[in-house]
Amino acid sequence: MGQHISEQFDIELGRIRNDFMEMAGLVEAVVRDAVNALVHHDVELAQQVSERDAAINRLEVTIDDLCVHTIAKRQPAASDLRMIISIMKACTDLERVGDEAGKIAKMARALASSAYPRDQYADFRTLADLAQNILSRSLDAFARRDADAALAIAPSDRAINELYRRILHDRTEEMRADPANVDRALNVIWAARALERVGDHAKNLCEYLIYQVRGDDIRHATKVLPA
Amino acid sequence: MGQHISEQFDIELGRIRNDFMEMAGLVEAVVRDAVNALVHHDVELAQQVSERDAAINRLEVTIDDLCVHTIAKRQPAASDLRMIISIMKACTDLERVGDEAGKIAKMARALASSAYPRDQYADFRTLADLAQNILSRSLDAFARRDADAALAIAPSDRAINELYRRILHDRTEEMRADPANVDRALNVIWAARALERVGDHAKNLCEYLIYQVRGDDIRHATKVLPA
Repeated sequence: MGQHISEQFDIELGRIRNDFMEMAGLVEAVVRDAVNALVHHDVELAQQVSERDAAINRLEVTIDDLCVHTIAKRQPAASDLRMIISIMKACTDLERVGDEAGKIAKMARALASSAYPRDQYADFRTLADLAQNILSRSLDAFARRDADAALAIAPSDRAINELYRRILHDRTEEMRADPANVDRALNVIWAARALERVGDHAKNLCEYLIYQVRGDDIRHATKVLPA
Repeated sequence: MGQHISEQFDIELGRIRNDFMEMAGLVEAVVRDAVNALVHHDVELAQQVSERDAAINRLEVTIDDLCVHTIAKRQPAASDLRMIISIMKACTDLERVGDEAGKIAKMARALASSAYPRDQYADFRTLADLAQNILSRSLDAFARRDADAALAIAPSDRAINELYRRILHDRTEEMRADPANVDRALNVIWAARALERVGDHAKNLCEYLIYQVRGDDIRHATKVLPA
């Protein structure tokens, strides 16, 4: 009977993890498409990003429900419980990454009718690469419960913040130099800020994982990771 | 024995709710002080806001731990479980409201050395009143588990978004009119955006509460609130 319950728990946990990875895949796709829509002035692709928001929101609610039901029915031990709660929190962050992709798509539509900038959005592209990279690595670490990988990710967030500040600085200079640049510069700033927020959410995923593993370890006294 | 467990559960729940209200009080205070620091160019007050961030973060971790321990030890029924999980999610939002207060404080420091704007930050003050009002009402509704009050709050968030867009529009006009306005206008935009985010987090609190109550009600089939 104990084994039966444990098998049921594993099945439900497997379903939660599958849905989570499906949601992660969707979210990574909308970020990628939103960035491409912006740098290629592709209004149609931007529109598609906005249309996929509902599917992401639905997955968040589904995962949330599965998690609550699993906790209520299976009454998992502290370590399993903390893992499920981490997934619930991670879902909330993923949903907000989807929202940031929506903001980038909105800026893509606003920018599509303006002239291509001289730098071909070079800094923005670099920032987008960094943000997509940290998101992908954080999701990998989260899926594999790899706290060491999560710990190694923090410096990437600092690099994103630095580049974001440079973009902010350079676009502000542009606005000061010529008021005609104000609208385009602001739109690029908003889109860059959304990418900076994607980096923050990726870092949150890592923190949930480290906290989860560290919390377990303190309780079970096997190994303590640095805070 | 069943009664003993139920009493223990009530005691732990009471402690979680107390800590949550303490955290809510701290967060409301830093938002208020950050706004005052900005409109009065008070660098010292802005500094105090930043220094209280650690206390808010500590409370978030404490509440989170209490919640996980209570779920693991007391194995609450679905409705109690959903309430505890709502509190955990609400804490995350409260902590981020604290972060937004920190951003306003940062802008307060940046603006303190510039000349007082002609409008005496009139729109910003109005936005701040709206944001503080929705935060306070959402926390009240959350504490009293008043889903009807939570449902009535949504229109306030729309008013905040509209005023934020007007501030964004007016400050953009200012930048177009004279490049000398760029820095001050941008700082006001960032601070206004932080207030707009406070409104979003307040709305999240309401959504957790409605979802929690609606979830309970669907399960217990007593009353169903509109989604």
